[in-house]
Amino acid sequence: MWLNRDIVSISDLNVEEIMEVIDRANKMLPYSSSGHPEKPLSDKIVATLFYEPSTRTRLSFEAAAMRLGARVLGFGALEGTSVSKGETLSDTIRIVNGYSDAIVLRHPSEGAARLASEFADVPVINAGDGAGQHPTQTILDIFTIWKESGPVSGKGIGFVGDLKYGRTVHSLSKALSLFDISLYFISPEELKIPKHIKKDIEKRVPVKETKNLDEVIEDIDVLYVTRIQKERFPDLEEYKKVAGIYVIRPSLLSRGRKNLIVMHPLPRVDEIPSEVDNLPQAKYFKQASYGVPVRMAILDLILRGD
Amino acid sequence: MWLNRDIVSISDLNVEEIMEVIDRANKMLPYSSSGHPEKPLSDKIVATLFYEPSTRTRLSFEAAAMRLGARVLGFGALEGTSVSKGETLSDTIRIVNGYSDAIVLRHPSEGAARLASEFADVPVINAGDGAGQHPTQTILDIFTIWKESGPVSGKGIGFVGDLKYGRTVHSLSKALSLFDISLYFISPEELKIPKHIKKDIEKRVPVKETKNLDEVIEDIDVLYVTRIQKERFPDLEEYKKVAGIYVIRPSLLSRGRKNLIVMHPLPRVDEIPSEVDNLPQAKYFKQASYGVPVRMAILDLILRGD
Amino acid sequence: MWLNRDIVSISDLNVEEIMEVIDRANKMLPYSSSGHPEKPLSDKIVATLFYEPSTRTRLSFEAAAMRLGARVLGFGALEGTSVSKGETLSDTIRIVNGYSDAIVLRHPSEGAARLASEFADVPVINAGDGAGQHPTQTILDIFTIWKESGPVSGKGIGFVGDLKYGRTVHSLSKALSLFDISLYFISPEELKIPKHIKKDIEKRVPVKETKNLDEVIEDIDVLYVTRIQKERFPDLEEYKKVAGIYVIRPSLLSRGRKNLIVMHPLPRVDEIPSEVDNLPQAKYFKQASYGVPVRMAILDLILRGD
Repeated sequence: MWLNRDIVSISDLNVEEIMEVIDRANKMLPYSSSGHPEKPLSDKIVATLFYEPSTRTRLSFEAAAMRLGARVLGFGALEGTSVSKGETLSDTIRIVNGYSDAIVLRHPSEGAARLASEFADVPVINAGDGAGQHPTQTILDIFTIWKESGPVSGKGIGFVGDLKYGRTVHSLSKALSLFDISLYFISPEELKIPKHIKKDIEKRVPVKETKNLDEVIEDIDVLYVTRIQKERFPDLEEYKKVAGIYVIRPSLLSRGRKNLIVMHPLPRVDEIPSEVDNLPQAKYFKQASYGVPVRMAILDLILRGD
Repeated sequence: MWLNRDIVSISDLNVEEIMEVIDRANKMLPYSSSGHPEKPLSDKIVATLFYEPSTRTRLSFEAAAMRLGARVLGFGALEGTSVSKGETLSDTIRIVNGYSDAIVLRHPSEGAARLASEFADVPVINAGDGAGQHPTQTILDIFTIWKESGPVSGKGIGFVGDLKYGRTVHSLSKALSLFDISLYFISPEELKIPKHIKKDIEKRVPVKETKNLDEVIEDIDVLYVTRIQKERFPDLEEYKKVAGIYVIRPSLLSRGRKNLIVMHPLPRVDEIPSEVDNLPQAKYFKQASYGVPVRMAILDLILRGD
Repeated sequence: MWLNRDIVSISDLNVEEIMEVIDRANKMLPYSSSGHPEKPLSDKIVATLFYEPSTRTRLSFEAAAMRLGARVLGFGALEGTSVSKGETLSDTIRIVNGYSDAIVLRHPSEGAARLASEFADVPVINAGDGAGQHPTQTILDIFTIWKESGPVSGKGIGFVGDLKYGRTVHSLSKALSLFDISLYFISPEELKIPKHIKKDIEKRVPVKETKNLDEVIEDIDVLYVTRIQKERFPDLEEYKKVAGIYVIRPSLLSRGRKNLIVMHPLPRVDEIPSEVDNLPQAKYFKQASYGVPVRMAILDLILRGD
């Protein structure tokens, strides 16, 4: 069932399957910092084809592959740009298909991973395709909640910042709506979550939308912070006003629930000041590190099956 | 005899040696997609020094090394450019000689690999040196013919497209002329095979030169297609006219021999439309994948001997 | 004592510790070209984060890691530039800390490695931080003297060329002053060793400063040559005059001691002409190759302890 399966969109997985990955990631956890003793993928080659830069995602996939004994080849964004000038994505995929046992693809165009999966015999993992999907990020986010905050069900989960453009927020909030939770969307007017996504989510779970983080901070177990990008605002003053509102200060967190955790897909700029880093709520670096066991679980599932 | 040998030019190998590589590549074939069970090169480091981009060649060398258990280090074209500004090729080679067990070199200057082989104690494999040689490409081309079309002897082999500038065509046609075959050169006037190459080849095998692919399609067992580059033509209209003539359409192939195969060194542009990809004649992706077993055979031969 | 230790500055190591690394490097030497039979680091991942280009240092660290069985991930200068735009060094370090067992850092800013070591739980090795430190280079230089010229004590060691800006010279001369040696600084007026360094060294060992290499060549066992960079001179003529004086010709070496050795951190330009390369005195390529056993020793010490 898992063997040779493409991981293109989080929507391709049901709740049971997501939990199966999370369960396996949890078993991988001890090996994610020391290497799997059996090196189960020692005969495998994982290709990482990155057509745009994403050092964090690339390195954590490579670490995951290596912790399982696999070998890694591929290219980064700069070489990727020249590759894409020279030939079509489908031709590159068909060629790399002959050089590897799995392809991890990062591409600026939505739909690229789906296309790739149609041309490759080996399984394709979508590591982000433009405004599209980045399913392993979504799973590692859920894993972080599960691991650091306990069972997902029953939680109040708040997203704060740029909810309009953030691929991460869209995928994760949709996936979380499959669980029994409450969702809080906190953003300025200009950066509200798209209506069609909100509508879809509201069918399954209660949703509260607000501009005011203070108003809901006490109802939240998981605060998922995202970066507000300057480029989204025509007026710099407008940006500064908005960005300043959602800075997560220790004083805010002290008003939150006792076990509140703060997550962030990183990189962060000023939205989480460094004084928060050593507070018990700060889980964003742990979250980044969970990319390894989650990607180990996925590589193991699609390359070896259950 | 093979141990520690440089592979700089296809001319350094005689027919028996080429066939020995092909025979070993065939034995490597099952391991080229699953890894050699004995990891015979697990103590070896292969350096891939690419002073110009060639993702396909680099990745297939790396896959070959990894399938045999070797480790890979090196640099790609962008870093290579800065390396070549900082020091001479011979100095870089003498340094990397201390960090690796074999050097795979891609360089824009003809003769670079020969120079490198003089300064390195470890064996050097030429992975393309400008207008010069790319011997492992030639061997994988012969391997493809042998594997997909049967014994080379007795075959009619046609080259179509740009026969003037194509390093691939020059090396392969020369190497093939050591076998008992017939050669067909199909190209526009502007892109004919250089006279000195044709003259040399004609000493050994029958050669037919023509502009008209239709005229010879029925005599051909192997059609080796190359890209006609726009840059070769001062006049865009002239280019379009010429390029259009040599597009390999299904209708053309249907007039060919029953077991005709179509090869291409890739990347292709429009000279082979995608509708051909799923026809039984299309072997160019298979050809690309054969880079792995052929390079496994060569690495194994020069690093372990017979 | 060694386990998990950061290697940020050569000053953090005392003479006994430096000799301990050298002793271990000597034991690693046979494995530095053939691979350690026990692959003691086969469960480890070494991250090489290069924010500026240094192919020699990067490749020799990677070779060292691989010879011990470790796996390597990371990025080079071009990707590093984009990483540093996206987030702070401390954030990148905390993230990569979750993906690896040791971090090798090259960075243009002095103090970067010290900062990194404060944010990483895994050990950090400074592979050069701007005008700062490059401790493994210093140790491999001492190893080269010890191996190619015999015990360090009692030696006359001369530095020639640009002694003002050369990080290598500053670190190495300071470290050597812990041994019982004589030091000779040979440079043009414009490129003399900084006074505070000279003063510090003179407390421990005799120092002679001169513009005239001929004057001291007979007193020298080890001649450490550095490149004089054109950019240091406002006037090209001035540069040419100065650079020409310190070209190490065979005729100069023939006037030197019988066992004189010539070292250079590389890359070299014209200061050592290629006719010297095959003389018995020329040890600079050997010196570069000793980067592997020395870095093997350090990786082994900090990842496995004594």
